[in-house]
Amino acid sequence: MMLFFKCTRSGLGIWRIQTRVWRKTTTVLPEMRSMCSSVRWKNTIADQEQDTNYQFHNASWRHLVLGLMTGTSAILAYGLYRKQEAEPKPETLLKNKAQTSYPVYTRQEVAKHKTVESGIWVTYKSDVYDITNFVELHPGGDKILLAAGGALEPFWSMYAVHKQKHVFEILEEYKIGELRPEDVQETCDVTDPYRKEPLRHPALKVNSLKPFNAEPPVQILSENYLTPNEIFFIRNHLPVPEVDPKQFRLNIEGEGLKSVQLTLRDIQTKFPKHTITATLQCAGNRRSEMNGVRQVKGLNWGLAAIGNAKWAGAKLSDVLKYAGLPEDIDAKHVQFEGLDKDITGSPYGASIPIRKALAKDGDVLLAYEMNNEPLPRDHGFPLRVIVPGVVGARNVKWLNKIVVSKEESKSHWQVNDYKGFSPSVDWDNVDFNSAPAIQELPIQSVITAPSNDEHLNSDMNEITVKGYAWSGGGREVIRVDVSLDGGQTWRVADLSEVKPNEGQAWAWKLWQLTVPLPKDQKNMEIICKAVDNQYNVQPDTVAPIWNLRGVLNNSWSRVKVTIKSK
Amino acid sequence: MMLFFKCTRSGLGIWRIQTRVWRKTTTVLPEMRSMCSSVRWKNTIADQEQDTNYQFHNASWRHLVLGLMTGTSAILAYGLYRKQEAEPKPETLLKNKAQTSYPVYTRQEVAKHKTVESGIWVTYKSDVYDITNFVELHPGGDKILLAAGGALEPFWSMYAVHKQKHVFEILEEYKIGELRPEDVQETCDVTDPYRKEPLRHPALKVNSLKPFNAEPPVQILSENYLTPNEIFFIRNHLPVPEVDPKQFRLNIEGEGLKSVQLTLRDIQTKFPKHTITATLQCAGNRRSEMNGVRQVKGLNWGLAAIGNAKWAGAKLSDVLKYAGLPEDIDAKHVQFEGLDKDITGSPYGASIPIRKALAKDGDVLLAYEMNNEPLPRDHGFPLRVIVPGVVGARNVKWLNKIVVSKEESKSHWQVNDYKGFSPSVDWDNVDFNSAPAIQELPIQSVITAPSNDEHLNSDMNEITVKGYAWSGGGREVIRVDVSLDGGQTWRVADLSEVKPNEGQAWAWKLWQLTVPLPKDQKNMEIICKAVDNQYNVQPDTVAPIWNLRGVLNNSWSRVKVTIKSK
Repeated sequence: MMLFFKCTRSGLGIWRIQTRVWRKTTTVLPEMRSMCSSVRWKNTIADQEQDTNYQFHNASWRHLVLGLMTGTSAILAYGLYRKQEAEPKPETLLKNKAQTSYPVYTRQEVAKHKTVESGIWVTYKSDVYDITNFVELHPGGDKILLAAGGALEPFWSMYAVHKQKHVFEILEEYKIGELRPEDVQETCDVTDPYRKEPLRHPALKVNSLKPFNAEPPVQILSENYLTPNEIFFIRNHLPVPEVDPKQFRLNIEGEGLKSVQLTLRDIQTKFPKHTITATLQCAGNRRSEMNGVRQVKGLNWGLAAIGNAKWAGAKLSDVLKYAGLPEDIDAKHVQFEGLDKDITGSPYGASIPIRKALAKDGDVLLAYEMNNEPLPRDHGFPLRVIVPGVVGARNVKWLNKIVVSKEESKSHWQVNDYKGFSPSVDWDNVDFNSAPAIQELPIQSVITAPSNDEHLNSDMNEITVKGYAWSGGGREVIRVDVSLDGGQTWRVADLSEVKPNEGQAWAWKLWQLTVPLPKDQKNMEIICKAVDNQYNVQPDTVAPIWNLRGVLNNSWSRVKVTIKSK
Repeated sequence: MMLFFKCTRSGLGIWRIQTRVWRKTTTVLPEMRSMCSSVRWKNTIADQEQDTNYQFHNASWRHLVLGLMTGTSAILAYGLYRKQEAEPKPETLLKNKAQTSYPVYTRQEVAKHKTVESGIWVTYKSDVYDITNFVELHPGGDKILLAAGGALEPFWSMYAVHKQKHVFEILEEYKIGELRPEDVQETCDVTDPYRKEPLRHPALKVNSLKPFNAEPPVQILSENYLTPNEIFFIRNHLPVPEVDPKQFRLNIEGEGLKSVQLTLRDIQTKFPKHTITATLQCAGNRRSEMNGVRQVKGLNWGLAAIGNAKWAGAKLSDVLKYAGLPEDIDAKHVQFEGLDKDITGSPYGASIPIRKALAKDGDVLLAYEMNNEPLPRDHGFPLRVIVPGVVGARNVKWLNKIVVSKEESKSHWQVNDYKGFSPSVDWDNVDFNSAPAIQELPIQSVITAPSNDEHLNSDMNEITVKGYAWSGGGREVIRVDVSLDGGQTWRVADLSEVKPNEGQAWAWKLWQLTVPLPKDQKNMEIICKAVDNQYNVQPDTVAPIWNLRGVLNNSWSRVKVTIKSK
């Protein structure tokens, strides 16, 4: 219990312990990975509840049990923290509520208000709100209309991001009445759509529980060229679907195609198995640095919403040809839909240009393996699209449907999200039609060691700076420059030697630089910046690329350290 | 003559007058262009001599004559300046020469010293130098060995960049003797390889006469979406060859091909004529800004070593198929050789990845037209390669030979030039093998108006900022941000509306932004930065991308203006 008290706001104390233990375990990673297969984590997280239970049957379990114990502590502490912070009790939050008496409505009366003409009403717990004037301001677009005339709870269970103080404060402004007491109970008893989530590795740092979003500690990231499945960042937009691989069918349709259904076995046997090593990066990787400039909307990702894995599957172009795709087609896009659905049955969706899908060296896969194992549930079991060189959001998981089309996907995430804007654009003047959907990502590099604010011992003779570097579109990283003096002078880092084919540099390069520790210096700002083979470079600072969604942060990676005598 | 005296070091006074007049003429550009066809400039520039002579037969000649007169004045003044500055008399430069007496050698004795073992000797005028220890330091690589055992003059006539004070100073360190008087005369009487250069437009700002390199005034550049041929920047590496189009033959050979010779008529009639609008940019565009950080080697280009034109010709892929290129080839490169040759007969050369040459939407042309006219001599008459999205240096002019190969071109300009390096790399530690040849260029944007250091009148209500923006590799420019306060806040500029196909955005976009002139402000730093559809951005500052060759400057474009009351 001692641990819990130390973990007041940020859980940082436990986090450090956990990280150290985890680093020990990862240095014996091959051993550990064999253990992983015989270990079952059970960590079912129901709404407001956590239940953990570990079983293990392996001889070399000492490291593991320590890792699991501290990891569990961390996740429990973090959960506790989130429970306190992310979902503050409405009565506390709404304490400023005016003490006027409000009219009382029945649920039937509320249900009549679903349009702008009649007013758009919603309920939360016992209160009734007229949000007609808020609809245009809603960051999530017109998805808010799904709740019109009804309760917010089912949607907020789906998008737990709403359970924050400022959201409750906004909501309070729109209160117009209260629900009849006998109508209140029913909406609070919502079945949690997240009750069947898979188990997760305790080392993952959770950004959001529902939907589940988490990244590994950044220090681990650059220790493995192939990121282990267990700690590969997870970016879910909706609950993870449960798919029976025997019942699974992939549906293919669209412009000039015959409609085709394929079983998983069809995909595994009718088409050559193609393997690529490719890095996936979330558009929001490094968003937290943008928050340092001005608050943005989105998950507060650190430096590790990126990972590199070996993916195997059928080539999308082979499958499209099998479905009868003609040589000369008008269609410009290939749309994907997942089996992950929101409460209305609307699936996650995205699309990519057909030019990428059909390019001989485009390497777009319908992947069923990740690092030589079946896809984990969190990464799209049994089938996901891997679009190498392209933002994570288009690598649709739990793939259900492929549509060849003249049009881009009309999905919220394609049309009204995952786009970049000028720093001058804010939520009151944003026009999502004015920017293209993010596809290929720009050049990126990050320092993974040392950590920001780390204390170095002045007795050390040398310092080793480490990190990753990657560029989208198959462009190879050709150089990483490192500065130890805030950008005044630069040195060239050593890059991992993986020589890709021209235009097919899908995988990141890890890099490091060992240099003498500067003497007589108390502080150091370490910077890295990378260059790709089209000589694209990273911008110096983050403020000029700030954007309201906090995506596409590829400014120089900076770490400040202090050098102390013992 | 008054004008010449004002033009002391930089010719700036005349330049301003010329620019103003030229701007007047360009506002009536269509009219002017029709005049151009009936006007013949004669401006043959022989070594150390200038002879100008204008004829005109058109009614609307008043603007023109003024433009030509001031233009001529400018070019004469500039020539005079260059004559004084760039080619100072050796006796002045070598005045520090030690007054010792030197051994006297015959030309035959000098000729025996061509290797490191025997020592590498060269002569300049009456002096003999042992440059054995300098060879490795020579910025132009081992091209210097071409002069081993002989005179430098023929090579320095070719590369006039050598005739500078610091070069003579370096040379002086290596003096070991003097030539027998009767051997001196012969090398000074070199036939000038530049005596047959074409005539040039007087508006062009000359960076180097031999080889000829010039750019238009930047203010003109953004006034035309298609840059008129007469003012399109000229980047020659060698003398312009004289080609008889009837005798012209294009030679095609290499891996898996039958050797083929094509006449110009063959190329114009055997293959479909394909037209694209594409921007060409020199890798050294904006080099002068890098010189502001630390001196680099190369022509001191301003902001206008870039232009946009309509090119027409045969598709390279069609021509290669005609030559029997098999479907599956090992070859990775397509090499090009020009008809422009150095004094040893070695041609200009470059290569591009075969992936680009064969890509369906790669649009690589063997172009014989520029803006609906036959290619001008300075732009490669009768045939040049247009590789849209790729650095100017690979768009080989006066095309003589195409070789499909497993190897890159071994040309100096492919292997030991036109590459980018870390700011930490200098001439004493550069390894040209460590960087890839520049191909597709990164995102670029430049402010063309107002000019740097311009005085704005505080009575103006508005200011219009103008410029160009472009990205390599067919990536479309999707946004240009403009700041009037040194990068603190940004506005989005209006872009010219040209919607390219995905991946085929070969042409620049012109942009402008009209905003109220800030009141109560005496100075303004105006900045622009662009974003392409892969969300690549420009770096904030130039120092971190400084490189010893001064290429690839795509840092934010900055203009400082002062606002003055009348």
